[in-house]
Amino acid sequence: MSITRPLGFLASASKAGLKPSGKPDVALIVRELIDDAGDRQGTAMAFTRNQLIGAPVVIGRELRRRTLAGDLSPPGVVLINAGNSNAATGDQGIADARRTCEVAAKLLARPTDAVIPSSTGVIGRLLPVQKIVDALPTLVNGLARGDGPDLATAQAIMTTDNVHKSAFRSLTIDGFAVQLGAIAKGAGMIAPRLDSASRAATPSATMLAFITTDAAISSEALQRALDLASDSSFNRITVDNHASCSDTVIAMSSGLATRASGTGGDDSGVLMRPLTPGSPGFVAFSAALAELCADLSHQIVRDGEGATRTFTVTVKGAPSDEDADRIAREVVNSPLVKCAVHGRDPNWGRVVTAAGNAGVPFDATRASLDIGPVAVFANGRPIPEALDNPALKIAVSADDVRFTLSLNSGGGSGWMTGCDLTTEYVRINADYTT
Amino acid sequence: MSITRPLGFLASASKAGLKPSGKPDVALIVRELIDDAGDRQGTAMAFTRNQLIGAPVVIGRELRRRTLAGDLSPPGVVLINAGNSNAATGDQGIADARRTCEVAAKLLARPTDAVIPSSTGVIGRLLPVQKIVDALPTLVNGLARGDGPDLATAQAIMTTDNVHKSAFRSLTIDGFAVQLGAIAKGAGMIAPRLDSASRAATPSATMLAFITTDAAISSEALQRALDLASDSSFNRITVDNHASCSDTVIAMSSGLATRASGTGGDDSGVLMRPLTPGSPGFVAFSAALAELCADLSHQIVRDGEGATRTFTVTVKGAPSDEDADRIAREVVNSPLVKCAVHGRDPNWGRVVTAAGNAGVPFDATRASLDIGPVAVFANGRPIPEALDNPALKIAVSADDVRFTLSLNSGGGSGWMTGCDLTTEYVRINADYTT
Repeated sequence: MSITRPLGFLASASKAGLKPSGKPDVALIVRELIDDAGDRQGTAMAFTRNQLIGAPVVIGRELRRRTLAGDLSPPGVVLINAGNSNAATGDQGIADARRTCEVAAKLLARPTDAVIPSSTGVIGRLLPVQKIVDALPTLVNGLARGDGPDLATAQAIMTTDNVHKSAFRSLTIDGFAVQLGAIAKGAGMIAPRLDSASRAATPSATMLAFITTDAAISSEALQRALDLASDSSFNRITVDNHASCSDTVIAMSSGLATRASGTGGDDSGVLMRPLTPGSPGFVAFSAALAELCADLSHQIVRDGEGATRTFTVTVKGAPSDEDADRIAREVVNSPLVKCAVHGRDPNWGRVVTAAGNAGVPFDATRASLDIGPVAVFANGRPIPEALDNPALKIAVSADDVRFTLSLNSGGGSGWMTGCDLTTEYVRINADYTT
Repeated sequence: MSITRPLGFLASASKAGLKPSGKPDVALIVRELIDDAGDRQGTAMAFTRNQLIGAPVVIGRELRRRTLAGDLSPPGVVLINAGNSNAATGDQGIADARRTCEVAAKLLARPTDAVIPSSTGVIGRLLPVQKIVDALPTLVNGLARGDGPDLATAQAIMTTDNVHKSAFRSLTIDGFAVQLGAIAKGAGMIAPRLDSASRAATPSATMLAFITTDAAISSEALQRALDLASDSSFNRITVDNHASCSDTVIAMSSGLATRASGTGGDDSGVLMRPLTPGSPGFVAFSAALAELCADLSHQIVRDGEGATRTFTVTVKGAPSDEDADRIAREVVNSPLVKCAVHGRDPNWGRVVTAAGNAGVPFDATRASLDIGPVAVFANGRPIPEALDNPALKIAVSADDVRFTLSLNSGGGSGWMTGCDLTTEYVRINADYTT
């Protein structure tokens, strides 16, 4: 179980006929209504920073703005489709997305602005609204809790994914058993640079991720936790350095966590108090959320189109953290580096020259590079004997090849994880039909 | 003929044993000495802006600085090797490059700082100095003018190139027959962002290009013409968005242009006066140099590793020219766009989302995209009937596919040319031995 294991959530999936394959392609995630939810239920969202955004992102941002401004009860319904991203579709696209939300809301007896639309698939084609509308009664009637709906939902949102993605974490906070569940999709057009509602973000898929938790946490606090988590997870992966117009992460809290077993006394009916930013409970929750997001991110990059292995570039000693991230991003996106990783080739010259190409000034004569545990380049000079080290052969054959670049030019550090570039990647993307 | 067709230049090539294939791998280009050269002979250079630079670039930059400061007679000898880039080789690399220049200079009876070293090939391996030194007498003895040495030189500098590159232009300036010849190499690690000696450059291969002309033009004026030419040619091509540590363009003028035939009178012995920046002759020369460089650039991207076709992204109506260039660069480097071009797939959603990912703000609802002559997206809305237009099928099958993105957000324009991404690219770069 994933998204319906935390208490207070239902999910379902169905077929609307948007995928050429005829597989399930629409899904619904619904948070139960509770009385006097107050700050115990919250909804947080993060979206692509692409200048061109899909109609669902336009609507989602507006819902987020109103939620954080206190003008709207946190939306508790997510309506998702795969097979059509409803992006580059102009005003018609926005009207189409709104129409699907309206119908879903009516069936659920909720206001339209309780429904967040989310779409992935081909760009620039009008959304087949009627197909989705026709599928909605089945979706609503199918809402349930359990392994079945969780799996069906995770599968319905897939596009070029080979495998569905889900994650789960649990922890005890203030004596309450808090659970976090998540599903995600994404294999191509993956390089999320999610915006941040709580502060300015610096870091680019269609990546969709939906997170549920039964923790009691307000929209504002959940948004802060989500922004922090995204920066150490989604924003650090790339398949193709091509940020989508549809990247979306939505997290919802139900506030229904129950007393952890073994805490003594009859606590039935006692409700968890909302987590406040800065509190030990919030920090623990944020850490679990970050782990959950890192888990999903790793699943996405592992399933990157055509990928056979991943690699992580860690940069230390940069002028700043931002500089370290820029350098790591440049290296992890170099097709020459990606091909070398694919070929298990310790061609470290490609790594250091990619680093030098990030627009960040550093003193190359003080730079060093390790592959796994093996130093191949130190203080601007090659270590020729490294190429004969058996440990190097093992390091370049790892499932996740580790490059550590030390610049000795400051205290900044950062990292990015990418995947290798293969002939299969080219086949998938040269043949993928518009 | 190419580099020795302009009067006053000799070239030769030989085998030093640096290429595993055993093919020719060292070359020499030499400008003849003339008395009282003054401002009639000049040498201009442009180098990679990568933070990590090869030892020859370190030396070349210093020679350029001294030349432009008037502290050095313009260097008139270029010693080139392929098979080893002498980059990431520390102080030893610089000493090694100097040693080869010293020996060449002695054989040519010139000062050491008359010799510019230039290297391309594997990164992070010490230069086999003795092999090059052993080849130098043959190189010097072989110096000659004609088709033979021009072709041999163009071939000796190749690495992963399938074909050698050369170009030639001629024009009449002030009654003198001015000739420009050039050779170049480059197929991978191609995305030049050349520095500029005459001003700050904004726009990454190992791309090497060597240009000769018999025009009379000083180092300073030639540098200005070269910087202008580079910005409309080398800096606008990319194969893999991975700027090399070794990109180098060197232009040398001999000042030996002769009177054009049919200009009347006995002008033998009359020398062309140096071209001064701003003069009509300088403008004409600069235009010819820009054409020559564009010709070489096109040859390089056509021969991009694994490429079957090229594509050009033109951006109009951007906030500024720099913004337009950034957007064009983002699009032309997207692997999703490159694969679509390979697959002749009019998947324009990839183009507009790549554009939106360049970090340049624009109003997507005012953006339009044409592929060749066919509008596929206009004012933020798709043109569905375009997908059935036979002209679109022709446009995506062109040798150079043309994308024109109009943002209607300002007066800035720019363009970049790239090549498609193929399974052959992956094979070349996953198997290329360090």
